[in-house]
Amino acid sequence: MSTRRLRRAIATVCLSGTLEDKIAAAATAGFDGIEVFEPDLVASPWSPAELAARCADLGLSIDLYQPFRDLDSTDPDRFARNLRRAERKFDVMAALGVDTVLVCSSVAPDAVEDADRLAGQLATAAARAGERGLRIAYEALAWGRHVSTWERSWDAVRRADSAALGLCLDSFHVLSRGGDPAGFADVPGEKLFFLQLADAPRLAMDVLQWSRHHRLFPGQGAFDLPGFLAAVLATGYPGPLSLEVFNDVYRQADPARTAVDAMRSLQWLEEALALRDPASGLPLPPAAPALSGWSFTELGVDGVSGPRVAEVLAALGFTHTGQHRSKPVQLWEQGRARVLLNASVVRPAAAGIASVAALGLESADPGRSAARADAMSAPVLPRTRGAAEAELSAVAAPDGTQVFFTRTVPDGWPSDFLPTGEPPGPGAGITCVDHVGLSQPFDSFDEAGLFYRAVLGLEPQEVTELAAPFGLVRTRAVTDPDRSVRLALSAATLRRGGWAPGVPEPQYVALATDDLVATAAALRAAGAPLLALPANYADDLEARFDLPADLLAAVREHGLMYEEDAAGAYLHLATEVLGDRVFFEVVQRLGGYDGYGSADAPVRMAAHRRRRQAAVVP
Amino acid sequence: MSTRRLRRAIATVCLSGTLEDKIAAAATAGFDGIEVFEPDLVASPWSPAELAARCADLGLSIDLYQPFRDLDSTDPDRFARNLRRAERKFDVMAALGVDTVLVCSSVAPDAVEDADRLAGQLATAAARAGERGLRIAYEALAWGRHVSTWERSWDAVRRADSAALGLCLDSFHVLSRGGDPAGFADVPGEKLFFLQLADAPRLAMDVLQWSRHHRLFPGQGAFDLPGFLAAVLATGYPGPLSLEVFNDVYRQADPARTAVDAMRSLQWLEEALALRDPASGLPLPPAAPALSGWSFTELGVDGVSGPRVAEVLAALGFTHTGQHRSKPVQLWEQGRARVLLNASVVRPAAAGIASVAALGLESADPGRSAARADAMSAPVLPRTRGAAEAELSAVAAPDGTQVFFTRTVPDGWPSDFLPTGEPPGPGAGITCVDHVGLSQPFDSFDEAGLFYRAVLGLEPQEVTELAAPFGLVRTRAVTDPDRSVRLALSAATLRRGGWAPGVPEPQYVALATDDLVATAAALRAAGAPLLALPANYADDLEARFDLPADLLAAVREHGLMYEEDAAGAYLHLATEVLGDRVFFEVVQRLGGYDGYGSADAPVRMAAHRRRRQAAVVP
Repeated sequence: MSTRRLRRAIATVCLSGTLEDKIAAAATAGFDGIEVFEPDLVASPWSPAELAARCADLGLSIDLYQPFRDLDSTDPDRFARNLRRAERKFDVMAALGVDTVLVCSSVAPDAVEDADRLAGQLATAAARAGERGLRIAYEALAWGRHVSTWERSWDAVRRADSAALGLCLDSFHVLSRGGDPAGFADVPGEKLFFLQLADAPRLAMDVLQWSRHHRLFPGQGAFDLPGFLAAVLATGYPGPLSLEVFNDVYRQADPARTAVDAMRSLQWLEEALALRDPASGLPLPPAAPALSGWSFTELGVDGVSGPRVAEVLAALGFTHTGQHRSKPVQLWEQGRARVLLNASVVRPAAAGIASVAALGLESADPGRSAARADAMSAPVLPRTRGAAEAELSAVAAPDGTQVFFTRTVPDGWPSDFLPTGEPPGPGAGITCVDHVGLSQPFDSFDEAGLFYRAVLGLEPQEVTELAAPFGLVRTRAVTDPDRSVRLALSAATLRRGGWAPGVPEPQYVALATDDLVATAAALRAAGAPLLALPANYADDLEARFDLPADLLAAVREHGLMYEEDAAGAYLHLATEVLGDRVFFEVVQRLGGYDGYGSADAPVRMAAHRRRRQAAVVP
Repeated sequence: MSTRRLRRAIATVCLSGTLEDKIAAAATAGFDGIEVFEPDLVASPWSPAELAARCADLGLSIDLYQPFRDLDSTDPDRFARNLRRAERKFDVMAALGVDTVLVCSSVAPDAVEDADRLAGQLATAAARAGERGLRIAYEALAWGRHVSTWERSWDAVRRADSAALGLCLDSFHVLSRGGDPAGFADVPGEKLFFLQLADAPRLAMDVLQWSRHHRLFPGQGAFDLPGFLAAVLATGYPGPLSLEVFNDVYRQADPARTAVDAMRSLQWLEEALALRDPASGLPLPPAAPALSGWSFTELGVDGVSGPRVAEVLAALGFTHTGQHRSKPVQLWEQGRARVLLNASVVRPAAAGIASVAALGLESADPGRSAARADAMSAPVLPRTRGAAEAELSAVAAPDGTQVFFTRTVPDGWPSDFLPTGEPPGPGAGITCVDHVGLSQPFDSFDEAGLFYRAVLGLEPQEVTELAAPFGLVRTRAVTDPDRSVRLALSAATLRRGGWAPGVPEPQYVALATDDLVATAAALRAAGAPLLALPANYADDLEARFDLPADLLAAVREHGLMYEEDAAGAYLHLATEVLGDRVFFEVVQRLGGYDGYGSADAPVRMAAHRRRRQAAVVP
């Protein structure tokens, strides 16, 4: 069992761009090494020696050359030609200074089925490699013609009994076929030459297509990567931990961001592993302190949107209780719900822009939360702070939202606000923030799930898909076990084009009440801009559910939405969009309902869209 | 058997936007009716009666209300509630003025398995419908809990024996499960209440996901829709032909375009059907005249790119042979390859823009080609023509390229050009145009395949996927049986965002030679800007193939590309990109090679990208 951090590597195929883009991104994100994906090298103007020099300059080792395909053959002539091809690739490896090549099981019609003959051909190739100080890591593709399980690949390696031939294990190939890592215990660590790690969502589809389009970084999908890696490390495998992810989005996303995301996935995995097995002795980041709720939600506003949002907060029953000592920031409160309006964010003058700028999360230990974020590739943002002001640490989420770690205690962040003396009104029954809904940039939906998981310790929930009026939308919540912090993330399934409205999609703050009908009546009386919903929606509810007449009447009067599932029910309403992209929801959870009203979201989106098309933004 | 055109309908779920957007698009494209997809109505501010009035204004009938889910239940109370829900939907139908509702087989845990009990519940619901002059069309979802084949749905309808209960057949649900339409012969036409048509690519994946994301319009996928429809019409089914396509791209694409595409798919299907069975007597568009090659490729250029492209054409061995009588258009020729440079297209001054503006196709009967296009929802474009000039008809392809139907005869289009008197040079061995490569707008890749199929009679080939440096790219060729006209269409698999370079992607004209090595040497000597490829590429070729030394030397010297498949081999080269997006290829087909060099495309793309990043556009 290793007692130090294993080296971290990434296959160049994980990253978008040219080879130059890829290695720069890998080095900046802190990887120790790379796997050179052959097509990346073939398309590069750098010779192998030049690539080796560039990697050395960046402090990157080259840990693997891959892939070599279709080595074995039932046709002796073809096998001879394949050996000749291998020799030429050995030349490339020598120039690159890499000693291990990945040979994957053949998919060709002439692939060798007989176990001894296959082992013999692998041994022949390995002998050629060994003569040059190189070695072959043999991997079973999940769709290999005859060798499609790791057990068959291990059988071939064992039979070949060659010092220069070992096994490459790839978590996708093993776990996609339901393979059992427990069997790795039979493999001596020194015969395990390489390890490739990828996660994936559970998809019922052709395994090759699944592999080529939908792989994810560890912690983003549904596979048990910690269990897989623990079984691998128990063999004595010395590393590196190397990522190999084929993913349609990452293939075209900024490689610098993807590389950070990838690094975080390994950090998360290492931590999960050490927690399972303290003997591994991996250095751990500080554990994520418990989060116990929202201290505040900060909206960035301008001179046009700010007064409007303030007016709406008042109509929602909030009181303007505080004013920041040094910044143009207002504090609004109702129950434990707190909203900051920050007019200091630099924006085009008078554009009517409003958006969620920051989330304040109540941490049991804000300093440790910040240290953990730092250790998880989410560096603490530089801030300016007035003399008498509380120390506040924030990190940037993938969508740019600032996440603050706070404690709402008298000498904490509230002390930065001078009381306005405004007496609290009766309120409208709002008790706290239920959740915040953040639409994500197209490229960073999976990145965001891992960010909140690894940095904050929130657990990603199931991905849900909505048929919204202008295209499909995916949503996924991240939340703590107690549901004291819930974030609903969403993104379009296909990046929007010219017809379908693009970014910015609306964001929202969902406020909790214990009696939505009463709260809605109070909001209506106070003039809150409640979003009107079609009568057809209420008619459909009436057809589908046995709702009490007074509830149905309130649905029709106030534009309430209702849905239920096996665990409970959900009543909610939305305001109109304020400024360009923010609205409020007010929600009431009944029974054990644990969702976010996604079944109603298309109706709400269509209503918002109509209002925004009709409205001249104030 | 019907002897007239059947009514054409489209489900609102096929189209993006609000219900208002959808019905406007359907009407404009010429549909006779719609299926109202319930969630579209629920999200609409229009009452059912208002929708009916709007449809009537637009000349659209409402042919179906859909879907009604999970009607049957093993729980009598729940079945009673489901009946009550149905009654409320019957109210909606009455207000809409639609008499048929789609009931799909239940997916719920309480779905009824017993055939007689299921039939009894369907009969009960149908009796309620019948009392109100309505009827139920029962459909087997391919993933229904107990009823997942059309045979089981027909069994239930037959057992129920109710006048108000009939069958709905959906080509996707039947064909995705390998169902056999031959069995439809057992269904009396009057028991077939509705027909939904969708095509799909062959995908090995969960049928529900396949259905929800990847359906296509008839003629765009791999299903035998003509055979399916012939079997349906043989029952005496009187119509309508109604499209129901769930597709991620169409959900977010301009509905006006999608509706035209959809209409064309029905026109194509009707024609295919009548060809199979002349007794159907459907009115047919003029048959597509045979195409026998390229008469010209027209490049739109400006004052900066025009001289550069002319210079390169000269270096490629072309001669400037003609000048248009009334327009700033040059004719360049070599062998049967003809390129027009058109500087009359309105463009920003001196931006260095060059693109494929028009394709001239050699038609056996240009007038009939134009009439067919018109009949296939591709109206002939208005044009200005000088007094002495030939009559030329063109239509617009989905990417905006103009497609001309021409004959290259003395009194045809060449007579519009005055000879320059320039003597033809020795040329470089280029004989004709092999193919033209057109990158497609993201939303119109499938639309383009159907356009060339239905309008021009070209057959779409297999879809190929490339791992290009900045993301995946799909390509699909369309070609005539003789391969005298080949078009290679391509599009990004995911719409490009901020990192990956977006549109315009390059377009190219591939010129044919019988000896690429000789042609390449001639081009190099003449100073053509041949694209340099990495030495790694030639090294890889050397490792993979037994190429003759002189060929390998030419590969290294001139940047040739080589690939082979079971049928033959392909040698090709590319020039640098001229202006902002056009380049030339020169290609040599060996043996029966029928592809487009897509295996080499990523290397070529990376080289082009580097050149364009490095270059200041001349």
